[in-house]
Amino acid sequence: MQTFIINSDGYNVYVGTIYTRLEEFLTERSYAKTFILVDTNTSEKCLPKFTENLPSLKEYDIIEVDAGEAHKNIDYCVGIWKMLMDFGAGRDSLLINLGGGMVTDMGSFAASTYKRGIDFIQVPTTLLSQVDASVGGKTGIDIDHVKNIIGTFTNPEAVFIDTDFLYTLPQRELLSGFAEMIKHGLICDRQYYFDLQSNALGSIDNAMIFRSVNIKNRIVLEDPKERNIRKSLNFGHTIGHAVESYSLAHDQDPLLHGEAIAIGMLCEAWLSYRQTGLEESALIDIQDFLLAYYPHYPVPEDAFDELAGFMRKDKKNEKGAINFTLLTAIGQYTINQTCTDELIREAFQYYNGLLKKKQL
Amino acid sequence: MQTFIINSDGYNVYVGTIYTRLEEFLTERSYAKTFILVDTNTSEKCLPKFTENLPSLKEYDIIEVDAGEAHKNIDYCVGIWKMLMDFGAGRDSLLINLGGGMVTDMGSFAASTYKRGIDFIQVPTTLLSQVDASVGGKTGIDIDHVKNIIGTFTNPEAVFIDTDFLYTLPQRELLSGFAEMIKHGLICDRQYYFDLQSNALGSIDNAMIFRSVNIKNRIVLEDPKERNIRKSLNFGHTIGHAVESYSLAHDQDPLLHGEAIAIGMLCEAWLSYRQTGLEESALIDIQDFLLAYYPHYPVPEDAFDELAGFMRKDKKNEKGAINFTLLTAIGQYTINQTCTDELIREAFQYYNGLLKKKQL
Repeated sequence: MQTFIINSDGYNVYVGTIYTRLEEFLTERSYAKTFILVDTNTSEKCLPKFTENLPSLKEYDIIEVDAGEAHKNIDYCVGIWKMLMDFGAGRDSLLINLGGGMVTDMGSFAASTYKRGIDFIQVPTTLLSQVDASVGGKTGIDIDHVKNIIGTFTNPEAVFIDTDFLYTLPQRELLSGFAEMIKHGLICDRQYYFDLQSNALGSIDNAMIFRSVNIKNRIVLEDPKERNIRKSLNFGHTIGHAVESYSLAHDQDPLLHGEAIAIGMLCEAWLSYRQTGLEESALIDIQDFLLAYYPHYPVPEDAFDELAGFMRKDKKNEKGAINFTLLTAIGQYTINQTCTDELIREAFQYYNGLLKKKQL
Repeated sequence: MQTFIINSDGYNVYVGTIYTRLEEFLTERSYAKTFILVDTNTSEKCLPKFTENLPSLKEYDIIEVDAGEAHKNIDYCVGIWKMLMDFGAGRDSLLINLGGGMVTDMGSFAASTYKRGIDFIQVPTTLLSQVDASVGGKTGIDIDHVKNIIGTFTNPEAVFIDTDFLYTLPQRELLSGFAEMIKHGLICDRQYYFDLQSNALGSIDNAMIFRSVNIKNRIVLEDPKERNIRKSLNFGHTIGHAVESYSLAHDQDPLLHGEAIAIGMLCEAWLSYRQTGLEESALIDIQDFLLAYYPHYPVPEDAFDELAGFMRKDKKNEKGAINFTLLTAIGQYTINQTCTDELIREAFQYYNGLLKKKQL
C-alpha cells in the first residue's frame, strides 16, 4: 500500500502504512525512555496492533486516560505530568500520543510543557485527528469546557497516520472527521468539496486523507501562528466551538467535534450568504450535503446567551469582537468578519428551521 | 540615574529607572487590554508606585495571588487562567508580571499558554528575580514541590528592572538574590566574585545588578535551550533545588530559593573539590564567604532518601543519572558531571559539619 509523505515545518507526516517508518524513527532517535499515551478506547482497539507491529519497541510505559472529550482538562493533564514524573521521564524521553484528538491535543500539551518540553510524536487513530489535529503544531486542553483555551504551538517530531485504524471506528466518529474534510474543500478547494460529495464516506482512503492533510499543511506552513490565512481553518468553528462547549456542559451524550462543526458550518454558511456574498445556490448545496449526513440538534432559544458567552471567550476574538471566517463562494473564504448579535441569533434560528427540511 | 539596556533574544532588558521606557513601550504597543499580576506583597508594596509612575496606563485589571513560593502551583495557575478568561483577555492583551520569581515564573507560564500565548513583560521586584528570573525565557510552575517541572521557554516582550523596589525588601530576601550573584561570579567571572566579596550587600546598585544580568544574558543567548553552556547556571542547583523542595514540603517557614542555593553551592563546591579539581583553598574561600551570610540548615540523615528522590526527578538529569555542574576553579565550571550516591551523601555530611564552624 502506498505511503504518502508530507513535509511540514521541520517534521514529516506519513499517511498509509506507517510501521517501517516508525521503526526507523525509533531506531535512529534511540530515546532513553518511551511512553505511550492512550485512552480507554485506543488502549483496547489500537494499542495491541500498534505494539505488535513495532518489534524493536521493547520497553515502554503506558499512560491511560479515560476516553471522551470532556476529559481533555487540567486534572487529566496533571495526571499525565505526574505519571511522567513518577516513571522518571527525562528530556531524553519520547511520548507517543496514540488516539483521537483528545489524546493528541492533551498529550502534546503535556509533552510541550513537561520539563519545558520533551519530544513527542502523533499517531492519530480517528479520522478527525488524522485530517485535523495531525498537522499544525497546536496543542491544547479545555478549561470549563472552553475549547483549547490553554495550549502551545509546538511541533511533533513526526506524525504517523495509519488509516487501518479507521476500520475499527464507529460511523459517527467517521462522520465527525468527515466534517473537517468538507471544511477543507469549502474554504479552499472547490474540486475536493465536490469529490467528497460524490464519493462521500464510502471511499475515504489514504489518497483522500492525504488531500485533506495536504491542504491543511499548506495553510499552516504559510501562517503557523494564525495571523492571517490560517484563520481560514476556523470556518464553522466560531459557532461550532460554542455549540460543542454548550453540549459538553449540558448533554449526557454530547455532540462530537465534527457534529458541532457541521452545525457551525451551516450557521456560518448562512452568515456568509447574508454578509459576504455567498450565493443562495451555494448555501443550499452546503445545506443539502450536511443535512444528509449530520443529525439535527435543535438549539433552544434560551441557550443563545450561554452560546454568546462561549463565543466571547473564543481565542480568535480581537478587540473584544467575535471573529468569524466566512465564505464568499464554495472554495473561497474571507477572514476577520464580525456579525451583530442579532444576526448570529438569526443564524441559529435559520439552523433550527432546517429541522423541518431534515425531516422531509 | 543611569539606565542600562541589555539586548537579549529579541527583547530589551532595562536596568535602572524604568518608567519612561515603560510608558514608551505601552504607547507604542497599544494593547487592547492590560492585566497586572501581583502577589499580596507586591500588591501593597510595589503596585501603588508602579501605577502612579505610569499615567498613561489608565485601564487595567489586577490579578492577585497569595505570596509565597508554595503557591507557584497548578491551582494558582488555573486561577490566573480563569481570571484572564473572565476578564475577556484576548491575544491582543498584555500581562505585566509585577513581583518576585513566583510571580514572574508563574505569570509568564500562564501567559505563554493562555490562548497559546499572549504577550507579557516582566517587572521583577526582588533581587533574586532581577538577577535570575529576568532573562532567559524560562517560565514554570511546581508540581508536588518539584521545582519548575512544568513550564515553557518563552521570551517576554521586555524586562523592566526598577532597582528602587529593593529598598522595601527585607534583608533575608536580598540575601536570597545575592546567592545567585555569587553563583554568576563562581561559574564564569572570578573578578566579579571577588568584587562581591569586598563590596557585599551594602553596595548592590544598578551597576552590580547589570553585571549579573549581563553574565546570565551572555550565557542564555549562546545556548537558549540549555544544551551545553547554559547548564553552567545550574551550579548549586541540583542539591539546592532538592533542599528547597524538601524545605517547602516540611517547614512552616521554608528556606528561600537563594538560601537553598547557598547550601547547594557549598555541597557542590565540596563535590568539585573531591571530583573536578577545585583547590582546597578555593573551597575554603567559598565556604567562608557563604557561611558569613547564610544561616546553617542542618540536613537530617534520615532526609537523604527524600532528597535523593527530588534529585532523581530533576529536569537536568539524562539517561537516568543525576546531573551536576561543578567548578574546576573559581570562575570556571564543567557540566554533565555525575556523582555516586555515596559521594552526594558525604557532601551533605560535609555541609552538616560546617555548623560548628558557623557557630565559632
